[in-house]
Amino acid sequence: MPELRHDPFQRRWVIIATERTRRPQNYARGEQALPKGEFCPFCPGNESSTPPEIRSIREGSAANTPGWKLRVIPNKFPALRIEGDLDREGVGLFDRMNGVGAHEVIVETPDHNRHLADMTYGEVEKLVEAAGERLRDLYRDRRLKYVLIFKNHGEAAGASLAHPHTQIIGTPITPRTIATELDAAHAHFIAKERCLYCDVMAQELRDGARVVRSDALFVVLAPFASRFPFELMILPRRHSCTAGEMTPEERAGLARVLRDMLRRLKVALDDPPFNLMVHTSPNLDYEPVRPRHFETLRWDYHWHIEIIPRLTRVAGFEWGTGFYINPTPPEDAAEFLRRTDGTT
Amino acid sequence: MPELRHDPFQRRWVIIATERTRRPQNYARGEQALPKGEFCPFCPGNESSTPPEIRSIREGSAANTPGWKLRVIPNKFPALRIEGDLDREGVGLFDRMNGVGAHEVIVETPDHNRHLADMTYGEVEKLVEAAGERLRDLYRDRRLKYVLIFKNHGEAAGASLAHPHTQIIGTPITPRTIATELDAAHAHFIAKERCLYCDVMAQELRDGARVVRSDALFVVLAPFASRFPFELMILPRRHSCTAGEMTPEERAGLARVLRDMLRRLKVALDDPPFNLMVHTSPNLDYEPVRPRHFETLRWDYHWHIEIIPRLTRVAGFEWGTGFYINPTPPEDAAEFLRRTDGTT
Repeated sequence: MPELRHDPFQRRWVIIATERTRRPQNYARGEQALPKGEFCPFCPGNESSTPPEIRSIREGSAANTPGWKLRVIPNKFPALRIEGDLDREGVGLFDRMNGVGAHEVIVETPDHNRHLADMTYGEVEKLVEAAGERLRDLYRDRRLKYVLIFKNHGEAAGASLAHPHTQIIGTPITPRTIATELDAAHAHFIAKERCLYCDVMAQELRDGARVVRSDALFVVLAPFASRFPFELMILPRRHSCTAGEMTPEERAGLARVLRDMLRRLKVALDDPPFNLMVHTSPNLDYEPVRPRHFETLRWDYHWHIEIIPRLTRVAGFEWGTGFYINPTPPEDAAEFLRRTDGTT
Repeated sequence: MPELRHDPFQRRWVIIATERTRRPQNYARGEQALPKGEFCPFCPGNESSTPPEIRSIREGSAANTPGWKLRVIPNKFPALRIEGDLDREGVGLFDRMNGVGAHEVIVETPDHNRHLADMTYGEVEKLVEAAGERLRDLYRDRRLKYVLIFKNHGEAAGASLAHPHTQIIGTPITPRTIATELDAAHAHFIAKERCLYCDVMAQELRDGARVVRSDALFVVLAPFASRFPFELMILPRRHSCTAGEMTPEERAGLARVLRDMLRRLKVALDDPPFNLMVHTSPNLDYEPVRPRHFETLRWDYHWHIEIIPRLTRVAGFEWGTGFYINPTPPEDAAEFLRRTDGTT
């Protein structure tokens, strides 16, 4: 009998197949076309084909020249633009506003073919630091209500350039996904004066069936109501609403767990396409129209990272209902990934 | 400047690109692999490889033998099963229930390669009738709270079998997508004692920029806050909450508009993969736990059909935020499709 499971964070139901479940080897490998020889605007020597860098890690060389190890640049074709006023207006029954926001790219490495899963812990730590720095800096712009840090790996996951990169988009509204999580977490906090994520983490650590990895700083879960096969959630043990306030130890710890988990996925699922999203608090300094629950945000919300390998296709059922059919129970995914060695 | 638009039905924001917009010819054609020669369980002669038919249109021949024109069968690998009790239970902070529901398939034609866009109006009308009949019949099962009718066309849209077919899934919960629409429509009705969908339809007919096609019975819009390029919404002019109560004229009219619009998409976008979803009312006879707004459902809600060509990939930004970046303004899509001939 298939099972319907409710996600307490997203208040979303998922159908978990319990018969004919699919093992990792049953997923067709995503076509990971990493076209070689084509012009890559992120490769060293092509710095002039991107907008001038916002920040880079380099030893001695001049900005916008080769010699860097990591580079932060504005997106050349931004989804939202940093200039301008919001200009909110109603149009009859409709509402619109100008597409004010930010869209940046972190080029993670000068090496076109260096997968995040194959980097050293030190290299991943530099990426974690750069992303945190951009998050804090963008939240100084009080027009921005939310900043999403995400990564698309592989063509099937929407990556249009193969060169390893992470994207950052700042938006003038709280995204629906985050608003739903904030509402659920707020309701839990008001009822119990405890964090929903801390409670789930404690319950999952006691149960164990869905714990993939845990150490003193981070816990990795295959979520109870996983929408996708091998979906993962990385939670910091220390309660904090924002990824922008990690300690140096947490940044180093996150680099280890991230590299380790991406390595395990790469080994177990033959380099699957994936999306990685950081779920963090809206801008605590946002000024216009502060929703009431901003006051308890620091207690309500618990930042985390979501990783979804793209092994199944989203089709009419998912679009029509907003819920998902997952052919691999998270307990099976967790067991399989626990047994996969991602440390070497 | 890109524009942020709010969808009044789904209460969702969309980013509409207004520069560098993409024309139809800029979309890479989806790989429409229609593998030939492989065994097809939906082809005539292979009736024994599917569960026994629920209903068929045939002249004289026996059930589960060739000679049919349309066939309704249970899904051999159902996402939800019709047998059993719901058995709702809490597991600590989590909630689960048995996967009780229904999963059926309408095989639209005996011809493996006959695209819905190429059928006669009469053939499409038979499909419309069969789907309506299944909707009414499944809603006699009072455990089912919602029935979704949908179609996946093309591999990139999640169709695992190429033979033209439509799917029907009955669920014991109101899907989140529908719940959101019901909430928005209910709030509008309570405030104004008018239907949100009727109001939007009237405004769009006055404006004209997003109207793709309209006749005495149906209006086709490129929605103001389209998430996807060439997304379409088919609305019946007559207010009705359910697709299960169409008049014979409406069924014939829907067959014409549906065939016409699918033909236009096929011609304009070179047979794109697409998902089609019928958004209809939850089961008006549902018994356990009737949410309060079921009382005004007949006034609140307005059934409609959504068609989304799958030309862009959903990536980290969409997963992380729940909103979308659409590179083709709906005004451009509407103009292009108005000029496309879908009648021949």
